[in-house]
Amino acid sequence: MSRILIGVMGPGEQATAGQIAVAYALGKALAEQGWVVLTGGRNAGVMTAACQGAQAAGGITVGILPGADVAHLSAAVDIPIVTDLGNARNNINVLSSQVVVACGLGAGTAAEVALALKAGKPVILMQVGPETREFFQQFSQRPIVLAETVTVAIEHIHKNLSMH
Amino acid sequence: MSRILIGVMGPGEQATAGQIAVAYALGKALAEQGWVVLTGGRNAGVMTAACQGAQAAGGITVGILPGADVAHLSAAVDIPIVTDLGNARNNINVLSSQVVVACGLGAGTAAEVALALKAGKPVILMQVGPETREFFQQFSQRPIVLAETVTVAIEHIHKNLSMH
Amino acid sequence: MSRILIGVMGPGEQATAGQIAVAYALGKALAEQGWVVLTGGRNAGVMTAACQGAQAAGGITVGILPGADVAHLSAAVDIPIVTDLGNARNNINVLSSQVVVACGLGAGTAAEVALALKAGKPVILMQVGPETREFFQQFSQRPIVLAETVTVAIEHIHKNLSMH
Amino acid sequence: MSRILIGVMGPGEQATAGQIAVAYALGKALAEQGWVVLTGGRNAGVMTAACQGAQAAGGITVGILPGADVAHLSAAVDIPIVTDLGNARNNINVLSSQVVVACGLGAGTAAEVALALKAGKPVILMQVGPETREFFQQFSQRPIVLAETVTVAIEHIHKNLSMH
Repeated sequence: MSRILIGVMGPGEQATAGQIAVAYALGKALAEQGWVVLTGGRNAGVMTAACQGAQAAGGITVGILPGADVAHLSAAVDIPIVTDLGNARNNINVLSSQVVVACGLGAGTAAEVALALKAGKPVILMQVGPETREFFQQFSQRPIVLAETVTVAIEHIHKNLSMH
Repeated sequence: MSRILIGVMGPGEQATAGQIAVAYALGKALAEQGWVVLTGGRNAGVMTAACQGAQAAGGITVGILPGADVAHLSAAVDIPIVTDLGNARNNINVLSSQVVVACGLGAGTAAEVALALKAGKPVILMQVGPETREFFQQFSQRPIVLAETVTVAIEHIHKNLSMH
Repeated sequence: MSRILIGVMGPGEQATAGQIAVAYALGKALAEQGWVVLTGGRNAGVMTAACQGAQAAGGITVGILPGADVAHLSAAVDIPIVTDLGNARNNINVLSSQVVVACGLGAGTAAEVALALKAGKPVILMQVGPETREFFQQFSQRPIVLAETVTVAIEHIHKNLSMH
Repeated sequence: MSRILIGVMGPGEQATAGQIAVAYALGKALAEQGWVVLTGGRNAGVMTAACQGAQAAGGITVGILPGADVAHLSAAVDIPIVTDLGNARNNINVLSSQVVVACGLGAGTAAEVALALKAGKPVILMQVGPETREFFQQFSQRPIVLAETVTVAIEHIHKNLSMH
């Protein structure tokens, strides 16, 4: 049986302190459930914070890197996947995740949420306003969750996983 | 000197009659400027309408296909590029276009607009409401244009091209 | 009806004078048949020579670039496709070509020939020794042609196109 | 510190019993060194055998899948990476591996070896004849090893890793 991978997407260099704190707590909570945390792998913002949280709880972390080598790799990534695909790697992030959690919203994260919805992946939004949820809802027949807390996010991931 | 490629993105099977009509007129107007029209290449919606318009004006059309062969290729594509990348090909659509015009908005188009803004490509929106423009504006320092008519879109493409 | 694309692959910076001369003559001959010449798009070796030959005969040229922009683009490419995929773009070169002609052999070209055979694409080799033909033949049920002249290569492309 | 990933490439459905036996023993030996085993992820041939061997020794296995979902996933893959890139995923296999071991040779494996050499990755060949080693040697300035036994392969991986 393969492990369950949960993607945590979000801003890199532009991430706010609040997003980073939530990403860390989320990564920790995901690892406590026994899930593998997948991110974009770079040493910045939400990506590295989620991996750090996951490692703090003894979890395994996967980083899907845009470049051709491990430059800018987060030190908290156990398994670096080197794609040399630039932002085309966003689609791998999404397809490899059973559930996609966006924590904050930059352009790259917006692309990932859109690709996730196109692929029929469950999406959970955190650290964004209700107008963001509303915007993305137009692309999905099932409700997109805006989770205020990590606990709510974890609950919704469990619900989504139990449907399969 | 290489040709100028302008990308026209938009819904496939879900495209409305209005979006299809605008895409056709836009493709025609782009070809009349001597520009190559680039789309996602499938025989559906905005993609095929823009190519049909361009061919009606004697233009050249490029289709960046998601599959591993030319199945579902629009008959109005002159140059099919077969990627076998699925939706990761969206990034190629964007990077190969000097300006990206979105005509209507599905999940795939939303991903393309976000990727275009991340890559610093000029984006012109058509056939969407002002709230869509506002949503994407958060990812861009220069104003994103919501063009009501093909004439306005062409004017803005000229402006963007002259900046380089 | 879409145009017929023929791929010309071969060494870039490492190309020999002989390979460059053949690539130019081949590009010219392909364009004279009305076919579009597709290459890896960079301003080096076989890629640029094949495009120059094709343009000299009034043909259209497509360049599938590895980078994120048009840096290092051959001036003889009409239609630059910007992939930002690095060497993963090799698979696009192959899938987009109805027939793949390798003119000389570097590591990248070897990967393209192998991918072409895996995809069931007809392959014609030029400017390599018989041991190269023999090596690749193990991956193909139909005979791989080692063409001594451009005329022979064109004949074999016609044969391959008429089978479909 | 991220884990060390060693790629094991080789035929899928066409693999021989000998190749499968070696791939299993190799996967086991790699895991015993504490290395993560990376393969193409499908439930066939060398890919699945290497993963089974690694799991038998308590190791972690990564599978880089060509499709858009986990169909045909080897049951011995812990971490499935879903790329939807078709054979373009071969470049990810290579770039993500510190050392690439080819066990047998199909067209896909040949493409991977060529891409590995182009990227400057150390390559070890197993279960192929000396003419295969000789063919690939033309693309590499350092000697390509043809390892007769798993023990020799492991020794060479240690040598390569200690150079960095």
